[in-house]
Amino acid sequence: MSASTSAALRIGIAGLGRMGQRHARVIALGTPGARLVAACSPAADEREWARRELGVAALHDDFGALLRDPNVDAVAIVTPTTLHAGQAIAALEAGKHVFLEKPLALDVATCERVAAVAQAHAAQVAMVGFVRRFDASYLQAKAEIDAGAIGRPFLVRSQTGDMNDPQGFFVRFAPTSGGIFLDCSVHDIDVARWMLGNPKATRVFASGTIALHPGLADCGDVDNGMAIVEFDGGARAMLYATRTLPHGHESTSEVIGTTGTLQIGVGAHRDRLQLRDASGVRHRAVADFYERLHEAFDREIADFVAACRGEKPLAVTLADATEATRIAVALTKSLKSGQVEPV
Amino acid sequence: MSASTSAALRIGIAGLGRMGQRHARVIALGTPGARLVAACSPAADEREWARRELGVAALHDDFGALLRDPNVDAVAIVTPTTLHAGQAIAALEAGKHVFLEKPLALDVATCERVAAVAQAHAAQVAMVGFVRRFDASYLQAKAEIDAGAIGRPFLVRSQTGDMNDPQGFFVRFAPTSGGIFLDCSVHDIDVARWMLGNPKATRVFASGTIALHPGLADCGDVDNGMAIVEFDGGARAMLYATRTLPHGHESTSEVIGTTGTLQIGVGAHRDRLQLRDASGVRHRAVADFYERLHEAFDREIADFVAACRGEKPLAVTLADATEATRIAVALTKSLKSGQVEPV
Amino acid sequence: MSASTSAALRIGIAGLGRMGQRHARVIALGTPGARLVAACSPAADEREWARRELGVAALHDDFGALLRDPNVDAVAIVTPTTLHAGQAIAALEAGKHVFLEKPLALDVATCERVAAVAQAHAAQVAMVGFVRRFDASYLQAKAEIDAGAIGRPFLVRSQTGDMNDPQGFFVRFAPTSGGIFLDCSVHDIDVARWMLGNPKATRVFASGTIALHPGLADCGDVDNGMAIVEFDGGARAMLYATRTLPHGHESTSEVIGTTGTLQIGVGAHRDRLQLRDASGVRHRAVADFYERLHEAFDREIADFVAACRGEKPLAVTLADATEATRIAVALTKSLKSGQVEPV
Amino acid sequence: MSASTSAALRIGIAGLGRMGQRHARVIALGTPGARLVAACSPAADEREWARRELGVAALHDDFGALLRDPNVDAVAIVTPTTLHAGQAIAALEAGKHVFLEKPLALDVATCERVAAVAQAHAAQVAMVGFVRRFDASYLQAKAEIDAGAIGRPFLVRSQTGDMNDPQGFFVRFAPTSGGIFLDCSVHDIDVARWMLGNPKATRVFASGTIALHPGLADCGDVDNGMAIVEFDGGARAMLYATRTLPHGHESTSEVIGTTGTLQIGVGAHRDRLQLRDASGVRHRAVADFYERLHEAFDREIADFVAACRGEKPLAVTLADATEATRIAVALTKSLKSGQVEPV
Repeated sequence: MSASTSAALRIGIAGLGRMGQRHARVIALGTPGARLVAACSPAADEREWARRELGVAALHDDFGALLRDPNVDAVAIVTPTTLHAGQAIAALEAGKHVFLEKPLALDVATCERVAAVAQAHAAQVAMVGFVRRFDASYLQAKAEIDAGAIGRPFLVRSQTGDMNDPQGFFVRFAPTSGGIFLDCSVHDIDVARWMLGNPKATRVFASGTIALHPGLADCGDVDNGMAIVEFDGGARAMLYATRTLPHGHESTSEVIGTTGTLQIGVGAHRDRLQLRDASGVRHRAVADFYERLHEAFDREIADFVAACRGEKPLAVTLADATEATRIAVALTKSLKSGQVEPV
Repeated sequence: MSASTSAALRIGIAGLGRMGQRHARVIALGTPGARLVAACSPAADEREWARRELGVAALHDDFGALLRDPNVDAVAIVTPTTLHAGQAIAALEAGKHVFLEKPLALDVATCERVAAVAQAHAAQVAMVGFVRRFDASYLQAKAEIDAGAIGRPFLVRSQTGDMNDPQGFFVRFAPTSGGIFLDCSVHDIDVARWMLGNPKATRVFASGTIALHPGLADCGDVDNGMAIVEFDGGARAMLYATRTLPHGHESTSEVIGTTGTLQIGVGAHRDRLQLRDASGVRHRAVADFYERLHEAFDREIADFVAACRGEKPLAVTLADATEATRIAVALTKSLKSGQVEPV
Repeated sequence: MSASTSAALRIGIAGLGRMGQRHARVIALGTPGARLVAACSPAADEREWARRELGVAALHDDFGALLRDPNVDAVAIVTPTTLHAGQAIAALEAGKHVFLEKPLALDVATCERVAAVAQAHAAQVAMVGFVRRFDASYLQAKAEIDAGAIGRPFLVRSQTGDMNDPQGFFVRFAPTSGGIFLDCSVHDIDVARWMLGNPKATRVFASGTIALHPGLADCGDVDNGMAIVEFDGGARAMLYATRTLPHGHESTSEVIGTTGTLQIGVGAHRDRLQLRDASGVRHRAVADFYERLHEAFDREIADFVAACRGEKPLAVTLADATEATRIAVALTKSLKSGQVEPV
Repeated sequence: MSASTSAALRIGIAGLGRMGQRHARVIALGTPGARLVAACSPAADEREWARRELGVAALHDDFGALLRDPNVDAVAIVTPTTLHAGQAIAALEAGKHVFLEKPLALDVATCERVAAVAQAHAAQVAMVGFVRRFDASYLQAKAEIDAGAIGRPFLVRSQTGDMNDPQGFFVRFAPTSGGIFLDCSVHDIDVARWMLGNPKATRVFASGTIALHPGLADCGDVDNGMAIVEFDGGARAMLYATRTLPHGHESTSEVIGTTGTLQIGVGAHRDRLQLRDASGVRHRAVADFYERLHEAFDREIADFVAACRGEKPLAVTLADATEATRIAVALTKSLKSGQVEPV
C-alpha cells in the first residue's frame, strides 16, 4: 500500500499552546503518513479544542499517561522550555520517538544528558525543531554550498529579528527564556554551524542594548544583542538579534564564501505584491516567524515522520542542538561579563 | 464533529495526466474536508497509480461509470479540453458538483451552454479553475483594491510568461489549444476583469510574432502575443503572452489606479535566496506555473470543497469563464484578421 | 593643448525656460570643451538670469541676432515646439551646428524638411535630444544586445510615466503638445527602434483613457495611452504612456530577446536608500524625468559637443527623429480613428 | 558677478596618483567656483599629465614650492598616507585651506597634533575626505534621521566591501595601510558616529580571518575583519570589512532606530539595468568605490570649495577624523590582542 495509508506514524502531542496547536494541526491535517492519535495538556479547554477541531480521540491531562498510551509511536513535545529535557528523556525511555520544539535546554549539561539518553536509544528518533533547517531557501542555500557555488564558506552573518511588540509581552517571559541569545540567536548559531560545515567554536564576544523595553534590565537581558563567534580553522559568525523591528519579522542569513555569497530572507516579503503610492514603492513584510516559516514547519514535521518511518536520515541531531546551546550560553555569559569568553 | 472528519466531500477525479495527478494528490493528501473516493482514466497505468499512491478505492475507465458512482458527491474534471464542456454538463445533470480545470471551452456558445445547465442546477457548485484567483498575492491585491488603496483601478497590464521549451513540445498541442490567447491570456483576462470590477469588454486588438517556434505558423498561432482590450467606462487591459522566456515562468499582473498601483509576481523569485558571484547579484526564477502557484492550487481545491459544503460562496463563476473566453476568442480573431474586433 | 582648453565649442542657447536653463547651466558649468557664449530669450528676466548666474556675455532677444553672432559655433534650441523646425533650418543655413530639444516637429513633412536641410549641410552637426540614448543604463543595455547577451531582440515594452500633477498644469499645454504619443511615447518609440535595430514600422494600434484629467477630452487627448506597433520582420513594440502615476516618474523599457531580456529603470529608485517602517519596506521614486536623467542630459550635451568637434559620430540622427515622429503620428491617428493605422 | 566666475578658489593639488588624478580632474573640469592652478608631484610624467590633460600652468616637484606659490589659495593633499599629517600642518601654517584625502593619520596622537594646528588657524578650512558624507543616499539617510523617520537611532551596521583582486595587489600595501580597520572600516566608523549623533565610543572588540590572501599574515592583517563598537548611552555599531567580495564593491550601511531602519547601498547596483537569462534574474554590481561614489567625490570637492569661500559650514571636521581614527586604532589593537579594548 502507499506510504500515506499503510503504517501511519501515530503521534501524540504534549502541549497545546499556540505553537502546540500549530504543530497539532499540521500533524492532523497536513502530514501524509502520520496521524495525530493523542494529545496531552493540563488545560481542559485545550484538550477540548483538540477533540473538537482535530478529532483527536485520546486526550490526556498528564504526560506520563501519554507515554503509557500503547497507540502512540512518537511524541511531539511543545511544552514550556523547562519541561523539555525531562520529558524528552522520559519519552525516549518509554520507547517513543521524540520531536522536541526548541530549545533542547538552557544549559549545556542538560543538553548532554538528553543526548546521552538518545544515544542509548539509537533506534528511536530524537529531533529538535531548528525550523530553518527545513525552509526551502535555507535548504537551497546549503545545496548551493555543497555544490561549490560559493567556494569555501568562511563567514556567516545571521539575524533573528522580531517585530516590536509595543506591549512588550515577551518581557514577562524574559526571566525564563534564557536571554536573547538562547532564545533567538540559537537559530542563527545553528545556521552558522550548518552552513560552515560544523566547525568547533572557540571564543565568543557579545554586546547588547535596550532600545525599547527597560523591563529587561531586571534579568540582565537586552532587546538588541550582537555577537561575534570565532571557530577553529578561521571561520567566523556575526550575529544580531532584535525584538524591536518596526516593520515585521525579518530573520536573515548570509553565507560568505571565497567565490560567492548567499543571502536568505532579506526583505521579508510577505507575498509577491508590490505597491506604489505616495509613500514610494513598497512591499509588506511577514508579521512573525510563523508566517515566514509555515511551510518549513510543515516540512519539519514531515521530515520527522519520515525519519521515524526509516525513510530518510534525521536532518538535525541532538548533538547539533547541544553545540548551539553551548555557544549561546557562552554568548550570554559574555553579555554579562563584558569580556571575550571561551566556548 | 469537526469540519475535517464529518461529512467529508467525496470527490471523484476524471483525468490523471500531469495536472490530474497533481489535483488528485492535493485532494487525497492535503485537503481537509474532502476525500478522493474515485478516479477515472482510460489508461490502466494511471488508474493503478491512483490506487497505489493515493489508495483510491473506486477506479473507472469510463466517465459515465464515474457519474453513476453513488459514493461520488463531486467530480474534478482534468481531461483534455475538448471533453470539458460535455463532461461538465453530464456531471451537473447527474447531480454532481463540478470542478473543471480551465478552459471551460474554446468557443463562447459552448461556454454559454454549460453555464445554462449550471444555472438550471443552481444547488450544485460549478467552478472553473482560474487558479490566480486563489493565489495569496492576487487575493491580497484584490483586498487592497477593495479597501481603496489605489483609488479607482482603470488599467490592468498582465502577462503569462512560460519558460522556453527548446524541444517546443507545446507546438504539437497548438492545433487544439485554441491559440496563445485562449491558452495563456485567458488567465490575464480573468485577472483584468476581476481587478477592474467586471466591466464589459467592447473591442480588442491583438498582434503577435513567432520568435522561436516556426512550427506554430501552420495553425496560425504565435509564441508571443500582445493585445489591448477596451472596456465600457474607459478601463483598459494590456496583455502579453509568451512561451519563450529565457529564465523561468514569470507571470505578472499590474493594476493601475488613480492613487496607487499594484504589481504581482514581478521577478518570479523561486525562493528567498539571493546569490552574489562573478555574474552579479541574482536570484533564480520559478520554473513553471505549478512551482509558482502550487499553494494556489491547494487553496483552489479547498475553496471548491468549502463551496460544495456550503461554507462559503464560490469565488469564480461559469459566467466569469464565459466572459473571459468571449474576450480571448475576439483576440484570437483579431490576431488572424489584423483588425480591431468587437467583443 | 588639452581638449578642455583649446578650441572650445562656442555655444549660444535659444530659450531659457525650465529646460533651457538646465541646458544652459550644463553647458556653462559642466561641459568640458564647450563654452556658453550667448543666450537668446524674448524675456528680459531670463536674459538677466543668464548674465548673472552663468556670466553669459552676449544676450539676444531675437533668434536672428543669435544666428548672426560670429562668435557662436553652435546653437542649442530649447524653445517652444512650434518654433523648433524653423529655427533649426535657419541655424543650419547660418552655418551653425544645431542641438534641438525634442520633438523635432509634430508632423512628418516638417521633420523631413528639416532633415533635408541638414543633409544639405552634412558638415554641420544636427541632433535631436532623445535623452534616453545617453543614459548609462540604456547605453549598457544596447551594449549588451550588441554583444549578443539576449540573442535576437524581437519585442520592446516601454513606458513613459509621469507623476500625477494634481493641478493638471499640463492640460493647458495639451492643445499644442501633439497629444500623449507625440509628447511622451516618442521616447519609447525611439528606444524601440534603437534596441530592435531600426526596423521599419508598418502598422499601429492605439487606445487610451482619461483617468484623472477630463479637460483633455476637449483636444482629443488622454492621460493614459497604450499602443502596439508592428515592424517589418516580426518585431513588435508595446507602449504605455501615463501622466497619472502616484509615486513619481517611472519610465521603463524592456527588451525581450530569444535568449535573454533586459529591463531598464524599473522601480525608479531615487537613490540607494531603503526604509523599513510600519508601512513596510520601501524606497522613494524619482520625482520627474530630470531627476531620473540628469546625468544623461549632461552626457547628451557632451556628446553633441564631441560630435561638433569631430571627436565622435553623432548618436542619434534627424532620420531617427523623423521615423519616431512618423510612428507617433500614426498612433495619434489611431487613437482618434479607433482603427489600426498604417505607418 | 556670479559665483562661478568671480573669485574662483585657486587650488593646488599634491599627489597625482590614481586618486590624485581623479581629484585633479574633478577640480579642473567639474567644480564651479574653483580652478586648478597648480599641481605637485615628484614624477615628471604625472606633472606632464596635469599640463597636457588639464592645462595646469604651475607644476611643482616639491610640496614646499607648492606652498610658496602665491596663486594657491587651497591645497588638496592626495599623497601617500605617511605624508598626510606633516603636509597638512605645513599647508595650514602657510595660510592655505587644506583638503586631505583620508586617512588623516594612522595614530591618534598625530591626528590630535594636526587638529590642534587647524584649531590655531580657525579661519582656514581643514577637511578630511570621508566621502560617504557627500553621497546622496547617505545625506538623505541623515536627513531622514534628523526628521525623525526612524525614531532614535541606536545601532549602525556598516560594511566596506571590496571586490577581490586575484593578484592581491593590496597585500603589498598592507604593511603601511594600518590594517583593514584603519584602511576600510574607518569609513564605517565615521558613518556610525555621524548617524548616531557623535556618541563617545567606550570599548571595542574585533576579530578577523584570512580567506584568500595568506600574505597578510606577515603584518598581522586580515582580509576579512569584523567588529563591535560600544558607545556611551547604549548605542552600538557592528562593522564588517572585506577585501574578497566576488561580485564587486558593495559597501553598505544600516541604521536601526526605534521606529524605523534605513539601509544604504545594498545590492550595489551598477546602473538601472536588470538582466534575465538562463542564470536567473540579475544585475551587475559597481566594480569599485570610485564607481560607487563618483558623484560623492564631486560633491565633496564642491563642498570643500564652498566652505573655503564661506558659503557653507564644513560637513566633517578634523575632530571627526580624529575620533574615527581613535576607534579604528582600538579595533586594530583588539584584533591583535584578541581581547576587548578600551577606546
